[in-house]
Amino acid sequence: MPELVFTETISESLKEYCNSNQIHTAFVLCDSNTRRHCLPLISDLNFVVIECPHGEASKSMEVVANIVDTLIGKHADRRSVLINLGGGMVCDLGGFTASIYKRGISFINIPTSLLAMVDASIGGKTGIDFLNFKNVLGVFNHAKAIFISSEFLGTLPEIEIKSAWAEIIKTAAIANHRLFESIENNLEIGEIIRQCALTKSEIVKTDFYDQGQRQLLNFGHTFGHAYESYQLEIGKPIAHGFAVAYGMLTELKLALFIKNITELEYQRIADQIKKYVGVEYQKDDLLEPMSKYLISDKKNTDSNISFSLPQSIGNGQYQYKVSLDQLKKWKIEGII
Amino acid sequence: MPELVFTETISESLKEYCNSNQIHTAFVLCDSNTRRHCLPLISDLNFVVIECPHGEASKSMEVVANIVDTLIGKHADRRSVLINLGGGMVCDLGGFTASIYKRGISFINIPTSLLAMVDASIGGKTGIDFLNFKNVLGVFNHAKAIFISSEFLGTLPEIEIKSAWAEIIKTAAIANHRLFESIENNLEIGEIIRQCALTKSEIVKTDFYDQGQRQLLNFGHTFGHAYESYQLEIGKPIAHGFAVAYGMLTELKLALFIKNITELEYQRIADQIKKYVGVEYQKDDLLEPMSKYLISDKKNTDSNISFSLPQSIGNGQYQYKVSLDQLKKWKIEGII
Repeated sequence: MPELVFTETISESLKEYCNSNQIHTAFVLCDSNTRRHCLPLISDLNFVVIECPHGEASKSMEVVANIVDTLIGKHADRRSVLINLGGGMVCDLGGFTASIYKRGISFINIPTSLLAMVDASIGGKTGIDFLNFKNVLGVFNHAKAIFISSEFLGTLPEIEIKSAWAEIIKTAAIANHRLFESIENNLEIGEIIRQCALTKSEIVKTDFYDQGQRQLLNFGHTFGHAYESYQLEIGKPIAHGFAVAYGMLTELKLALFIKNITELEYQRIADQIKKYVGVEYQKDDLLEPMSKYLISDKKNTDSNISFSLPQSIGNGQYQYKVSLDQLKKWKIEGII
Repeated sequence: MPELVFTETISESLKEYCNSNQIHTAFVLCDSNTRRHCLPLISDLNFVVIECPHGEASKSMEVVANIVDTLIGKHADRRSVLINLGGGMVCDLGGFTASIYKRGISFINIPTSLLAMVDASIGGKTGIDFLNFKNVLGVFNHAKAIFISSEFLGTLPEIEIKSAWAEIIKTAAIANHRLFESIENNLEIGEIIRQCALTKSEIVKTDFYDQGQRQLLNFGHTFGHAYESYQLEIGKPIAHGFAVAYGMLTELKLALFIKNITELEYQRIADQIKKYVGVEYQKDDLLEPMSKYLISDKKNTDSNISFSLPQSIGNGQYQYKVSLDQLKKWKIEGII
């Protein structure tokens, strides 16, 4: 498992780490945004900088080839380290490139978005997109270290912060009761990030390859992914976090109906989603157009649709299976 | 570690394996040669066939993309298996593609060349070339199983057989005395392949990431790689095995001089190289033009040149370091 370093002085912490780990040759991967806004915070360190364009389109074979081209040109060897300075895109792309360069060099993640700090940079899922399939090429491989500093939060737009809160509430609701109470009690963001990152890290430790326990973290993502895909299809794409918030609220109705959770627990979670993400449950008529996405969800292992649901706040179950017909019936009955 | 299956009836063994491992969706990767000569031996099994062009040029990102394109189109999921039917190129390429498709699906190697049977298909080194750098992109990842059948040997040209023998003698001389005696005693090829594959497999088990013991298998490859690169440079490329034979003979002179081995041991190894590969030691004047390749050998960890040398037949040492100046002196003195 990677070392998780929480700091408020990224430059010093990184320098100290590089010294004590005898890292001589380090490369920093950033995108056009993080080069401008985040790289200055570590500019006193002596790294070779590799820049890729901002945005999901950079998770491509072409960009991997460009990075590798630079690594070869600068004689990166197995003792070199790639430092990924950015959000989920940069961590996914850089983690994958490091994992395949010369059969694997070490990489360090420095997540600069709230979402990457609490989720995307942790867990060793690296990858790129290909032919419109998200993360279809990748490997499971841990970062050597992850540096989390809220210094970077000031640089983020509000919509990104809100979207990330959906994942924080998700992790709390299904895996850590104490974190959920911290959210309810308005603890400061640095402490929330710390608790959430550690929770994710603990789950990953027990189930790196996503065969069991780790699937808990898919709470809200069955309906969430389907909703996200549907919105993309109709030309009205929405941020991932808002789709997850929508997914959690619908899946909570399901958890309530099967008596996994109580009315009170339902309300407590829904309250935090409203407060931090700004999304409320609403009855809609989208089950039909979302069906094909629900059916092809990668968590499904048979013809049923598979859910991860809270059983109480901070505990959950995964692989709760429901047929599409059953869902449709519940929809008509107004249960979900 | 992968299951090593030695068989004389590849079709039956594979069918049995697929049944007992509940493999439903299998894809076979072959090149234009193995499609014609080897695929017919397993044509009664129901696989989706993916063909790539014959030759080293197929170890490219473009060919990986083509294979992935087919896997996606045929809905390969994490339970699918990719069967690599071919020599080292197909095993390297297919192993790499399987390792990164959806963060890794299983793959099976069916080596069809003698070299792949005793060496290339075993050990989990997968990879492709990029910008003329061999294997610069890849991962360490074990095959799920390796099927070795001498049924395929009949399809090989003599030069490939001879070239492969260099690696067999290398493995025996540095790691398995019993295998070496089997070679001297003209045991039948099937038994030699079995002993050599198992020897390689045992070494890999102790040192998967090539940090120690596994480096023994580089015997003959320090001078061998330099010679191969030099021959390529002057426009007279030679088969890898002949370069390794040349390298072993020069490095044996070194082992003899530093009293790692006796005159008798030197002679016994040289005899088998002559008998099976057809190469004899000869004094030459190539140290100067080979210097740059010796210096940039990937086994080196400092400014010295690093060798793996037998200490007796079947035992060896790795990371024996000599400076280039020392080598030049020994060359002038006629020692190597």
